[in-house]
Formats: sequence, C-alpha cells, structure tokens
Amino acid sequence: MKNMKKVVIIGGMAAGCKCAARLSRLSSEFEISIIEKNSFLSYGTCGMPFYASGDIDSFFDLAKTPYGLLRNEDYFLKVKNVKAFLNTEALSINRDEKTLNCKNLKDNTQFTLEYDFLLLATGAKVCEAPFPYPPSDNISFFHNPLDAKKFREKVQIEKIDKVAIIGAGLIGCELAEAMRSLWGIETHIIERENRLLPKMFDSDFNLLANKIFKDEGVKLHLFSKVEKVTVDSKENPCIHLSNGDLIECNYAFICLGIKPNVVLAKQSGIKTGDFAGILTNEKLQTNIEGVFAAGDCIELKNLITEQNDYFPLGSLANRQGRAVADNIFGLKSKFTGAIGTSSIKVFDYYFASSGLTEERAKQFGFNSASVVISTYDRPDYHPDVEDLVSKLVYDINTYKLLGLQLIGKGELTRYIDSFSAFCQKGATLYDLLEFEHSYTPSHSSPLNPLNNLASIAIMQEENRLMCLPPNLLSKFSGIIIDLREANEIKASPLRINTIKIPISDIRERINDFDKREDILLICQRGPRAFEVGCYFMQNGYKNVFYLGGGAHLGNLE
Amino acid sequence: MKNMKKVVIIGGMAAGCKCAARLSRLSSEFEISIIEKNSFLSYGTCGMPFYASGDIDSFFDLAKTPYGLLRNEDYFLKVKNVKAFLNTEALSINRDEKTLNCKNLKDNTQFTLEYDFLLLATGAKVCEAPFPYPPSDNISFFHNPLDAKKFREKVQIEKIDKVAIIGAGLIGCELAEAMRSLWGIETHIIERENRLLPKMFDSDFNLLANKIFKDEGVKLHLFSKVEKVTVDSKENPCIHLSNGDLIECNYAFICLGIKPNVVLAKQSGIKTGDFAGILTNEKLQTNIEGVFAAGDCIELKNLITEQNDYFPLGSLANRQGRAVADNIFGLKSKFTGAIGTSSIKVFDYYFASSGLTEERAKQFGFNSASVVISTYDRPDYHPDVEDLVSKLVYDINTYKLLGLQLIGKGELTRYIDSFSAFCQKGATLYDLLEFEHSYTPSHSSPLNPLNNLASIAIMQEENRLMCLPPNLLSKFSGIIIDLREANEIKASPLRINTIKIPISDIRERINDFDKREDILLICQRGPRAFEVGCYFMQNGYKNVFYLGGGAHLGNLE
Repeated sequence: MKNMKKVVIIGGMAAGCKCAARLSRLSSEFEISIIEKNSFLSYGTCGMPFYASGDIDSFFDLAKTPYGLLRNEDYFLKVKNVKAFLNTEALSINRDEKTLNCKNLKDNTQFTLEYDFLLLATGAKVCEAPFPYPPSDNISFFHNPLDAKKFREKVQIEKIDKVAIIGAGLIGCELAEAMRSLWGIETHIIERENRLLPKMFDSDFNLLANKIFKDEGVKLHLFSKVEKVTVDSKENPCIHLSNGDLIECNYAFICLGIKPNVVLAKQSGIKTGDFAGILTNEKLQTNIEGVFAAGDCIELKNLITEQNDYFPLGSLANRQGRAVADNIFGLKSKFTGAIGTSSIKVFDYYFASSGLTEERAKQFGFNSASVVISTYDRPDYHPDVEDLVSKLVYDINTYKLLGLQLIGKGELTRYIDSFSAFCQKGATLYDLLEFEHSYTPSHSSPLNPLNNLASIAIMQEENRLMCLPPNLLSKFSGIIIDLREANEIKASPLRINTIKIPISDIRERINDFDKREDILLICQRGPRAFEVGCYFMQNGYKNVFYLGGGAHLGNLE
Repeated sequence: MKNMKKVVIIGGMAAGCKCAARLSRLSSEFEISIIEKNSFLSYGTCGMPFYASGDIDSFFDLAKTPYGLLRNEDYFLKVKNVKAFLNTEALSINRDEKTLNCKNLKDNTQFTLEYDFLLLATGAKVCEAPFPYPPSDNISFFHNPLDAKKFREKVQIEKIDKVAIIGAGLIGCELAEAMRSLWGIETHIIERENRLLPKMFDSDFNLLANKIFKDEGVKLHLFSKVEKVTVDSKENPCIHLSNGDLIECNYAFICLGIKPNVVLAKQSGIKTGDFAGILTNEKLQTNIEGVFAAGDCIELKNLITEQNDYFPLGSLANRQGRAVADNIFGLKSKFTGAIGTSSIKVFDYYFASSGLTEERAKQFGFNSASVVISTYDRPDYHPDVEDLVSKLVYDINTYKLLGLQLIGKGELTRYIDSFSAFCQKGATLYDLLEFEHSYTPSHSSPLNPLNNLASIAIMQEENRLMCLPPNLLSKFSGIIIDLREANEIKASPLRINTIKIPISDIRERINDFDKREDILLICQRGPRAFEVGCYFMQNGYKNVFYLGGGAHLGNLE
C-alpha cells in the first residue's frame, strides 16, 4: 500500500497492544507491527495470582476477549490489522536508518524492520535478590505468566504443604492470599521492613494489615533479612534468616519488586532517569526522534511531588499506550503524570492507597500531618455494615491532599477512587469536606469517610486538637481517659491504665484535671474522643489528644 | 450563664441535629435548643425501608449511636449540652422581638423562646395525591417514621398478600424491593411516566431497570394514571386506573414524592423560590436577619445548571447543618450548591445517578449528547465479574460533564462517586479520560468505565461515529450488521433482521455496502461495534452508528 507509515511496537502486553489497537481504530494509514519475546500477546498479567490460585481455570483465559476469541497473532491481524511477531526479540535499534534488528527465537534467524515510529513498551523485570540462591524448580519469581503456569502445574501434581514468599509488596501479599485461602498451604512471608506493603501503608496504619494476615494463619517474619536460600536433597528450599531462623518449605517465591526493563533503550542511547526508567516528555517521546516509550519501562512525573517516580501499574500502561497512538496519529494527547493509586483484595479485605504515605510525604519535604479514623462503611444500623479504617495525609501549609490509606471489607473502593479524582485535580481539604457522594443506607452513610477525615483534619489544624496515631499509644505519658460505656470496655479492654468516664458524665467532670497536663481521650473508634476533645479545649486544656481509630486500633500494636 | 447567645433550631432530624452537635463542638458559648414535633430525635429516616422490611429489628435502632445510646433528650443534654423539646410545635416567629412561640403537643401549653440565631430545619412533607382516597388504616404515605412503624406492626399480625405502591421514585422502588424480597408479598407499582425512577434515569437507560423489577416479580403499571382509591368492607384498598384496570390489595402506599415544608417560613415572611423551598444565600441565611435554613425545606443552586433546584438528600442536609453551625460560630463556611448524586440498592442491583439526565440537560438548554455502554465491572476472566451498564451525558460545546447513570450488581458505586467528585470540580471529558482509579482484577479493569465512556464520547464528537440508544433499535431503517460470533448470537438472538459478519471477517467485506446508506453495527456490549465503526468511517462510510450497550440492551425494549 502506498505511503503507509510504519509503526513498530516492542512489547505485546498492556501498553504495546493498547497503542496498536487504538492506532488501528484511528486510522488505516499505518502499517503496525508488534515484536514480542513470549509466545502470547496482550496477556492479563495482573490476573496471574488468580490463575496460580486456581480461581481462574485455564492459562489462556487471561488472553481472551470477553467474547471468547484468543488474542493471538491471527486475532490481531484479522480484527486489528496489526502484524504480531511472537517469540521474537528486538536486538538493536539503528536510529539513523530508523530500523530495528530482530531475532526469531524459535529458529534463531534475524531480520530487520523499518520504522517511522517506534514504541518501546518493554515492560519491567524483577529486582534481583541481594542474597544467594541456587537454580531450582522450586524457587521462582512471580513475574512472567510462565512463573504462574509452572507453580500451578506443580501444585496440581506434587504435595506442596509449605510456601515461603520473600517480599511483602503487592504481589507477595496477593500470592500469600492465593496460597492460603485457595490451596490451604502453610504460608510464610519474609519482609525486611517492619510491615507488609511498606510502600502502600505507614507503620501506624499497617497494624491492621498485619493482624489480618496473622488472623488468616499467614506466618509473618517482619524486620527479617534473608542471608541465603538453599535446597535440600529433595529440592525443598530452606530460607536462612540473619537472626538464625530457618524456614523450610516446598516452594519459595522471590517477590522483591520490579524495575524498568531498559536494556535495549540504554544500548540505543535513550535516556533514563533516577528511577532507572526511560525518560519521556508529556507526549511520551524519548530523546530520540520518532521513538516513544510507555508502560512499566518508563518513569513518570508524580503529580503530587512534581518529581519523577515509578508507577508500574496496568491502568497507567493502558492510558499511556492510548496517548502514544494519539500522538503518532497527530492528535495532541498528553500524559502528564500520575499520583499512584492502587489496591488489592486479600482475605475479603480491600487494601487501598492513593498518593503519598506520610513517611514519603516527609521524605519529600512536605509539612504534612495526618488523621486516622475508624468508622463504618454505612450506617451502623444496617445489617451489612463493615468496619472501615482510613488515614488521610495532607499539607499543613496549603491544606492540599497528599494521600489516603484504607482498609476494610465493605464499601471503600469508592473512596480511594474519589480521593484519586480530587487529588488529580489538585484539591484541598475543603473540597473533600464538600464531596457529594451517593448516599443510601444500603452502602453508605450520610457523611462519608472523606467528609469526616477532612472535617477532623481542619479542626485539628484550627483548634490544635491532635490525633495520636494508634502505634504511639503505649508511649503516651499523660492522663488517659477512656470515654466508652462499660459494655464496650468489657468487650475490648485496653492493655493500658486509663481513667474511665463514660461520655454522658464528662461534662460534670470537665474541671477534674490539671489543665497543663497532656490529656489523651479514647473511645471505641474516634469520633466521641474527638468531640470530647473539642470540649476539653473549650475549657482551657492546652495539650489534648484523641486516639486515632480509637480502641478499635489501639490494641493492635 | 453570662452573655450566652441563644440558638433555637426548629426540627430535630439530620440538618437540625447536625447543626446543634457541630456548634456544641465548636464552642461552649451558645445555649442551644431544638424544637421537634415528633417524639424522637435524629432519626435515621433513610433507613425506614429496612425497618419496614424487617431487616432492622427495632424502631429505635434507627435513633441510636453506634455505641448503643439512644439519641434522646437526655443524650443530647448530657453529651451535646443541647436542650431538646420533643412533641413540641413551633407556632410562629416574631422577627422583631426575635422570639419563637411554641406549643407543647402533649399538654397544649404554649411558651416562648428567645433567640439570637434561629435555624429552620423543618424538612419536607409529602406531595398530596391528585386523586381521591378515603382515610384508612391500610392506605399510607411512607414519610414519617411512624408510617414505617404502622406497616411493620400490621404485617406482623395480619395477613398481607398484596401491596400496591403508587409512585416509582426512590422511596417507591425501595419499598417495592422490601415488600418483594423480604416479605414475599405480591407487589404492584403504579407510575404515571413510562418508567421507574423517572428523575434518575432516561428512558433508554431505564429499559434495564424495568426488566430487573419485572424479573423479580414486581408488577409494573407504567404510563398509568390513578383515578381514585377506594376500600372494600374489609378495608382492603382498590386502585382504580384510568384505563379501567382495578388493582385490589391489602395495603397501599402513596409515594408521590416530597416538597419543602415551609408553612412556618411563609407565615413569617421568609422568601421561598420556584421549587417552593426556602431561599438562602451561600451562608444558608434567609432574608430575615438571624434566621438560617437548612435541609429538605430549602432549595439549592444546581452547580451544573447554575439555576435553583430541589435536592432533598440526607447527605446534603448533614453538610448544610454543619455549615450553619460554622456560620453562627463565626467561621466562613459556604454551601455553594450540589449536583444531585443519588443511588439505591434494589434486588442486589445498584441504581445510581449523578448530575443531569439527558432529558433534563435538554430541558435546561444544553447542547448535550450521550454515550451508553455495557461493560463488565472487572476483567471478564475474574470469577466475580458482573455486568455494568452506564450512560454518560456531556456538553457537546464545552465537553463538560453533565451526568452519569449506572446500573449493575458489582463494583460501581466507586464510579458514581468519582464522577461526582469530577463534576463538582467542573471537569471535562478529558479529565474523565485521565481518571486514575485503583486497579486490581479483584474489583476493576485496567481502564475503568469512566475512561471508556470519555474515550468513546470524544471519538463520537471528533469522528461523528454515533451511538444509537438501545430504545431506538426497532426504529432504525438502514443496514444492520451483527458482528457477534455464532455462539453469542445463538445465546441472545436479536428480534430484528441483521446481516451477520463476525468481527474477524469484517475487513474482507468492508466495501460490500453502499457508502451513503445508514449503517448500524451491533455487538454484544458495544466495544467491538465501536471499533468496527471506526473502520467503516476510515473507509468512506458517512453515516455510521453503533448500538450503545449492544445486544445486551438491544432486546430489552
């Protein structure tokens, strides 16, 4: 065909396939090729834990359209008019001649493709382990779909009683859940930091996440460094921790995170940044003319910090693939950055996080503060009511929203997503206070948790009534007043000494304490203590705290 | 006490009680009184359908704190330092002397309260029926908590087999669900318009809502006018429709909506507006000095139309109560208006709506268009996947978001709430396209329905590829091509004649049709037809349509 512009895409997963499909929708004037090292295309890698667990039956279910067609070479050619080269590696880019040298991995033949536009969608690779381990069929990463396939095939034919997962990031936690709740396997998580999901949650907030995993029988080895992994004569892995502990198991996963796969980019003189990802402008163009990059191989601007960051998320990869197609076609599409919104569902709980944790906010130099509350996801009278614990991080100077963390079983994805929407628009505590959600007792309360968090944060700033994070409870040295009713105290007693004054009696006793002392107020979840805290401030007490999340979280430490 | 400012609040439900509680938290310098006609305070009226259905056990569960205290006079006095006068009616306001004349309804004594600030939170009253009906114990509104109590007591002791509900608004639909799924009662809904929830959904989108109610055995009498209601000798109601039909039942609910209760306001010279609600400024002050109004008795600015509107929603009433307290205290709180976001859960489905329906958008003079899609709430490979049908309404000139409608069983409240957040911030289709949600296959797809709707809407505007609403399918007169696979067509055949070309064959047959003809493309849910529609446009076809929501919705008419 005459004058067709040639587009070559390296990488046939989310970003690459999205770009191809979008460009094909926009125009018939492009000859589009995809180069993919593996033998499958457009594979739903985020669904791998469900395949490993047996929740999803067949390996190729993750590469089918909703109407049952396999997204293979034939599908891409017939439906999208895109030529896919599977089992093919991109070897080198000749930027002057605008060609790509490729190798067919099946017959080792090489060939060259010309391009007018090239997209690097080379994805991520696993972070190497900083400890030695032998090559073994029972030690595996969990990154490539074939890693999931290998485990799944093994667990179906061999007896696997005990699994160790090294690394408690998103993938590690999802895997632990899959092992535990679907195969019933004894599951150990080993993590260097003092908590699960260290990038997603702050330490205080994380007490609950740890508890959930422990309650489900997952053995947590936190603050634990792996010295080495060995295998015995039957190929059973053994994890050696630096404290001398040994964890013997039948299978070990190494889940230490991922980093941009930029081997080809670096060889070709394409610039990378501090996060080792390819640097692009807002059109997702690299420093080389005609060459774009998208997906897990690039770094992005964090819209909150306005500095570069690394967000390897399938949702962003898809949007980037779309933006590249638009720019190749000639539409002015921008990808300005992201705030980093993610979540997982484990053991019927949603764990969700958007923006910065407080720890990261401080690292980036924000003058930040936070509020922790423990609420219900809908009115407490509703039979389906569930707990919802939330933490808001904001900027004290500007009241700008910085981050949100949530854990609960019920209705909460709505709040992480709405927060994300506000945060993307640069919103403040006042916007959150005014947030108009869809209210009906079946799934929400008249004021939602974001309204409550904002209201408390503003009061905290304006009245200086302070939230004590639940992990600092045992370190508090002033007067501690428990405002709960006798039945509540009996049902969940605190491990510390407190003065017990039910909320109905507090007004009579408001002048009983030394007004210069530190006062900590505790109720079951937080709101009563906050309310009474206001009353203490009104009556001349200077240093008043309330326990964020109340006794509900105070005993988790 | 010296120099205490007196605050009198008329109405002890959401707005009134919220104002009292908030003001008490802000300061001890106010003497706060609440006047309430009923014998209960701060009652969760939105929970009444759950009490009527038996899902909630006790009448007073809806007036308890989460920690079990009844929110009665004693609670308000001891915990909030607020004096409540129950069973008390506010008779008249003397605006010059700043006094309120009240009557104790138990002993008929009158008394006068002085005020510095007065809040009218008099709520709403039911719209009167435009047809005659006799006074009867078996004919009732469903507005006052005592209405729910009366029905609940009756259904527990008498045999009630058949209920008629006149009016298919939010309350009517919630009641129908309660009757049907919890008491198993034969349930009839009678509605003047051609659809359920006429304010929430457009006709096209509503096909699915009607189907859900019908599938659950609710008998729908749409486009039906009630002539009169009579009762037989056993007090069984009989609904006489203008088409001659009679609906005999054991109990009838009249649910024709509510309107602002402004009797006292009008007597006192307080201005009301076109929606018969009290007019206020952004501080929620009325035209009379020192007098505020909040909750279901006021009208508000609709932030989309910038004209007044009526949104009797508990979520807004709470926020307004808060804002009034702030303004009385001296903080500068504004309540600028609302966009109107609401939802209900019926028969395991969520029905949700935010902003304007297309019908209302046109009435307000917007140059609006819409997109209907039928998607899944998470990747189709996930075992918990559910259908999600959505409709986006936007402004063709400015690309501003105008409204969203959703129906589904799964994860969708997140999308109505996130849309609401964007809409409150005056966002456009491009913001929705860039919306960063929390993605994990457990509860979402990499691109969310709002991303998809925005993408299709932008393509629709820029390529002029048009969405045909599913209710117009039978009126389409051009060439209709069904792109589905044979197994899909077999599973849900269409009732119209089509040319069948599976998507894999379409590129070979792209020149088979007259390029001046109207072409309609249909697939199961919409995306394939949209994609192929782009290809038809690229190949010179001028008038190309795709069926919004696909065959999934096309057969509902």
